[in-house]
Amino acid sequence: MLLRTVYLSLDPYMRGRMSDAPSYAPPVGVGEVMVGATVSRVEISNVPGFAVGDWVLSQSGWQEFAISEGKGVLNLGAHPAKPSYALGVLGMPGFTAYMGLLDIGQPKPGETVVVAAATGAVGSVVGQIAKLKECRVVGIAGGVEKCRYAMEELGFDACLDHRSPKLKDELAAACPKGIDVYYENVGGMIFDAVLPLLNARARIPVCGLIATYNGDPAAESKCRTSQVMSVVLKKRIRVQGFIIFDDYGPHFGEFRKQMTEWFEAGKIKYREDIVSGFENAPEAFMGLLKGKNFGKLVVQVSSEAGT
Amino acid sequence: MLLRTVYLSLDPYMRGRMSDAPSYAPPVGVGEVMVGATVSRVEISNVPGFAVGDWVLSQSGWQEFAISEGKGVLNLGAHPAKPSYALGVLGMPGFTAYMGLLDIGQPKPGETVVVAAATGAVGSVVGQIAKLKECRVVGIAGGVEKCRYAMEELGFDACLDHRSPKLKDELAAACPKGIDVYYENVGGMIFDAVLPLLNARARIPVCGLIATYNGDPAAESKCRTSQVMSVVLKKRIRVQGFIIFDDYGPHFGEFRKQMTEWFEAGKIKYREDIVSGFENAPEAFMGLLKGKNFGKLVVQVSSEAGT
Repeated sequence: MLLRTVYLSLDPYMRGRMSDAPSYAPPVGVGEVMVGATVSRVEISNVPGFAVGDWVLSQSGWQEFAISEGKGVLNLGAHPAKPSYALGVLGMPGFTAYMGLLDIGQPKPGETVVVAAATGAVGSVVGQIAKLKECRVVGIAGGVEKCRYAMEELGFDACLDHRSPKLKDELAAACPKGIDVYYENVGGMIFDAVLPLLNARARIPVCGLIATYNGDPAAESKCRTSQVMSVVLKKRIRVQGFIIFDDYGPHFGEFRKQMTEWFEAGKIKYREDIVSGFENAPEAFMGLLKGKNFGKLVVQVSSEAGT
Repeated sequence: MLLRTVYLSLDPYMRGRMSDAPSYAPPVGVGEVMVGATVSRVEISNVPGFAVGDWVLSQSGWQEFAISEGKGVLNLGAHPAKPSYALGVLGMPGFTAYMGLLDIGQPKPGETVVVAAATGAVGSVVGQIAKLKECRVVGIAGGVEKCRYAMEELGFDACLDHRSPKLKDELAAACPKGIDVYYENVGGMIFDAVLPLLNARARIPVCGLIATYNGDPAAESKCRTSQVMSVVLKKRIRVQGFIIFDDYGPHFGEFRKQMTEWFEAGKIKYREDIVSGFENAPEAFMGLLKGKNFGKLVVQVSSEAGT
């Protein structure tokens, strides 16, 4: 079948595919199509189960059209309510938030959960699920407007601006009972602010380290490894990395069902930052790594309308 | 009851109690009795269940006699085969090895397990249990004699001298299929040698960091925290600290039963390093932090004979 890309998802993990440093997935080769999740429409189909006009979630990558035999393609039907949401709250980022928080983080009522990039595709869902689990939720985000949104719209108990020179003190004040779950998606100086506040038996799901992806030494953690390990030991902390589809692939259906239910009941809110025009994808991606987006970053590559 | 200390256990955790740095347990105050596990004999008893002449496992600390109401004291009976073993293979160190390896490490047949301080009270048991679980076991120890013992007597597949300037290369050669479980009891440069060899989904139970306890900067890990976290993320590694009785106290009976069975069947071997004379305890303890002992370090404070 021929797929026409309508929405291209931009996600931090893509930065790793642009480097040949060893990682969990091979880098994209020079001259190859850059990888990426897409929501596309079927233009021509010889594949059973996919009709012209259907919406699909596919891995077409950074291109306007793709040929597919249907493998790994999820049919969203002819009239999904919000097709692009399959790239965010109902897709990989939402799934990452859901499994990392619930399976590794194991939040309990009354505990304190901290998450950075708090209005992003993952962080916003982490915080809202933690609220559903009756936790105190403290977000960290870039700027007053994002913090206001996290508190007023997403229901976080507090949200701090990571640019504040007093972040460590402010985080301590916002977590009077310490931190039980730190959902790690940023790393660097935020990790340093979190470390001294961790409670005994705290859990740290490690989903990403966006602060360090561009190799900026100033953004790195200032804590020595032996300091970190000493805290891990003395406080019996669990630190665990995960790669969502590799580690939790079989749970995707269960996640989709639960998240759709929460979303439709108004329990999870979601914000997109849609950039129009495929030609703007590179600049938008560079902005993502600097936190310039506000909400899930998606590129609209072509019109939603059927052809 | 009045307890006479026969054996005093010397263990690395004691170093932490000699510092007022924040930890999982308060430090020993100036003028207080230094804490420590002891195997003692009952000299006088008004406590039901304890008769004169009985051997007990207690927390009498660094003293020759102690008064006890029986709380937290385990009666070993009138004629235990090897009373001092309750301080090692059948006590806290063996329990630490058992739970950390099995519950956090979760070794599977064919996997590679690495443990340092390989002939010590914990490391020797970790390696032998891993062999019972059909793993490849690579030890790291201080000197040729300890390495020979680990291989020939304990059955490790390989054992490397941590003083070797080529430790990193030697460890890579000894772990051709990478490392699945690194039982962390040392830290520092050994952690640095292990880090690049960790396999996807490796587990690191963190039981101790003896290399760093005396605050020697030269003994610290040279890896930056962001390097470590990047490996944790990309390889989906689980790093988890634990404090044995706090985290696993209710499992002590199960451990004692299983380990006694293994020990009596000759499946677990055990070596003690007994220092005679209470007055030699401080020097022996300082030697422990430098790896001068060979086997579980115990001080014989008084005669085994009943009075």
